[in-house]
Amino acid sequence: MEGTPRFGVIGGGSWATAIVKMLCENLEKVNWYMRSVYALEHIKKQEHNPNYLSSVEFDVSQLNLSNDINKIVEESDYLIFAIPSAFLKRELDELQIPLENKVVFSAIKGIVPESSLIVGEHFNRYFDVPMENIGVLTGPCHAEEVALERLSYLTVACYDEQKAELVAKFLSSDYITCKISDDVIGTEYAAMLKNIYAIAAGIAHGLGYGDNFQSVLMSNAIREMKKFIKKVHKMKRNINDSAYLGDLLVTGYSIFSRNRMFGNMIGKGYTVKSAQMEMSMVAEGYYATESAFKINKELKAKTPIINAVYNILYEGKNPKKVFNKLVDKLD
Amino acid sequence: MEGTPRFGVIGGGSWATAIVKMLCENLEKVNWYMRSVYALEHIKKQEHNPNYLSSVEFDVSQLNLSNDINKIVEESDYLIFAIPSAFLKRELDELQIPLENKVVFSAIKGIVPESSLIVGEHFNRYFDVPMENIGVLTGPCHAEEVALERLSYLTVACYDEQKAELVAKFLSSDYITCKISDDVIGTEYAAMLKNIYAIAAGIAHGLGYGDNFQSVLMSNAIREMKKFIKKVHKMKRNINDSAYLGDLLVTGYSIFSRNRMFGNMIGKGYTVKSAQMEMSMVAEGYYATESAFKINKELKAKTPIINAVYNILYEGKNPKKVFNKLVDKLD
Repeated sequence: MEGTPRFGVIGGGSWATAIVKMLCENLEKVNWYMRSVYALEHIKKQEHNPNYLSSVEFDVSQLNLSNDINKIVEESDYLIFAIPSAFLKRELDELQIPLENKVVFSAIKGIVPESSLIVGEHFNRYFDVPMENIGVLTGPCHAEEVALERLSYLTVACYDEQKAELVAKFLSSDYITCKISDDVIGTEYAAMLKNIYAIAAGIAHGLGYGDNFQSVLMSNAIREMKKFIKKVHKMKRNINDSAYLGDLLVTGYSIFSRNRMFGNMIGKGYTVKSAQMEMSMVAEGYYATESAFKINKELKAKTPIINAVYNILYEGKNPKKVFNKLVDKLD
Repeated sequence: MEGTPRFGVIGGGSWATAIVKMLCENLEKVNWYMRSVYALEHIKKQEHNPNYLSSVEFDVSQLNLSNDINKIVEESDYLIFAIPSAFLKRELDELQIPLENKVVFSAIKGIVPESSLIVGEHFNRYFDVPMENIGVLTGPCHAEEVALERLSYLTVACYDEQKAELVAKFLSSDYITCKISDDVIGTEYAAMLKNIYAIAAGIAHGLGYGDNFQSVLMSNAIREMKKFIKKVHKMKRNINDSAYLGDLLVTGYSIFSRNRMFGNMIGKGYTVKSAQMEMSMVAEGYYATESAFKINKELKAKTPIINAVYNILYEGKNPKKVFNKLVDKLD
C-alpha cells in the first residue's frame, strides 16, 4: 500500500467513538462503521454520536460513515474492531470482503464466546488474517477521558513492530501517548481478565468490604493475572507495565466501570438477570468470566478470584459465602 | 520472657489507636504511651480517644495508660512505635530505660530525619537493639477501617520469624489477617516511598489529570519503588505483595490520605507552607521526599517521580512545568 493507509473503525460505542476522535487528529479521512442508522444520521446532521461521548464534536467532512460493514472494510487497509466480543460474530457473519490483506487491530478486550479464542486468534483462524497483520489496542483508558482530552497512555501491540509504530503514530496527539509492545496475546488477555477483577472489586464493595481490602484484592489480582497469562503464553513481560497493571487499576478503581457496577449490584443482592436488566448495558466481564474459567480448566493456573466470580455469576453461589472463603486465600 | 509478653504502644495518633484496639482483642492488658495528658484523661473518663478514631470504645480496665514514656517502656517487652518519624527523636530523647532487651516494632513508615535511617536501623544504631529484635508492622491499612472492623491485611516483618509470628498472633482477629515477612528493610522503605507517590497522585489530580493518568502513574510508581528498594537491599521479594503494591494503592487511591490531600493542594497552587498550615497535620511524605531524594544520590536508582515531587516541594519548581516533563518519562 502506498502513502497514508486508510483506517476503518468498526463499532458505534464509546470506545469506538474515542478511537475515531484520536484518528481524526491525524488523518484527513476516517472510515467508520456502525450498525445503527439512527446514530449515523445523527452524527451526519448533529456532528456528534447521540449515544456515546456526545460531547465530542466531529468535523463530518473527515468521516466516511456507513452502516454497511462490507463497504467500510473494503475501503480500509487498517481495521480497528471496537465492539463487544459478544456481538463480534454477528457482525462478522455479514462480511463478504476477504480480510487476508487487511491489518486487523482488536480494541475489544474479550474472548469471542463462539470460538473461545481471543480476537486476534479468531481473525487468524477464521478469516485467514496472517499473525503479522494482527494487533491489539489497549489501555489503561476510559473513553470518557479521551473525550475530555485528558492525557492518556495507550499500548499498541503487534507482531510486526512497524505496523504497531504506524498505528501508534496515527493515534498519538497532545493528549494520547502510545507505547509499542510485541505481546499481542498477553495484552489482549490482560484486557479481558481485568474486567473479571473489576467485577470482583464491585462485589466486594457491594458486600461492604472497604478500601483496605480493595487494595489487597488488586494486589492479589495482578499476581493471579501474571500466572494466568504466563500459562497462556510465556514470554518476558513486566506485568506492572501500564497495559497490564495500569489497565487493571483504571478499571478496578473506577466507580464508572460497567463491570465494577455490575459486580456491586451482585454484591448488594441483585441476581445476574436483574443486574443486567437494570444496567441495560453489557458488562464484558460477565462473558470473560465464563471464558477464562473454561480456558483455565486446561491451563490450571491458580485463580481463586476468577473462580469466586465464576461461582457467584454462573453457579448461583451466595456472594457473601463465596467471599468469606476467598478472603482466606488472599494475602 | 515467660508467658504472654507485655505489649506497649508508643503514640496517640490514629494508627497507634488502631493498633491498641487490635491488641485489646487478644490481650488482657495493653500498655499505651501518649504525650497528651488531655487525651489520656479523656480516654480514662470517656473510654475513647478524643482526637483520633473517636468511635472506638475501649474497655479502660484493659489499658495501662501513661504519658511517661519510661514507665511504658519499662513495663513492656514488645514495643510498637507509631508516631510520625519527624517526632520520633523528640520522644526518644526522653528515654532513660535501655532498649537492648526489648523487641521493637516500627509502625512508623518513614525515615528518621536526624539520622537519615529507617526506624529499625535507627534503633539498632543508637539504642543497641539487636537486629533480630527489630520488626516492621505495615499495611495496606487505613486506621479508620480498623475502627469500623472492616477486613484488613497487615504484614508483620522481622528477622526472627518467631517474633513476627508472635506479634501477628496478638494482632489477628475476625477483621485482621496478618502475613509474615522477613523483608524488614524493604517493607519499611515501601511504606515510606508510597507516601511520596501519594503526594504525586495528589499533585496530578490537583493539576487536572484524570483516572487514566493516575493508573499510569501508579503503574510507573510500583516499578520505580521496585528499583529503589532493590538498590537499598537486594533480596527475593514480590513487589506485588500487599505490603508493597497493596500499600501503595490504598494510599495512592485514597481521597482521605493526608499525603494525597497535601499533593492535591500543591497541584492546585498552594505553597508548601500554606498547604501545611491549611491541613494542620503532618504529611509524612513531605519528609520522606527529602530523605528518599538524598538517599538516592548514592543509590542512583532511576526515580523520575520522586525527583519531580522533590523539585516541586523543595526547589520551588512550578508543578505544571515539572509534570509536563515527567509525563514524557512515564510509559
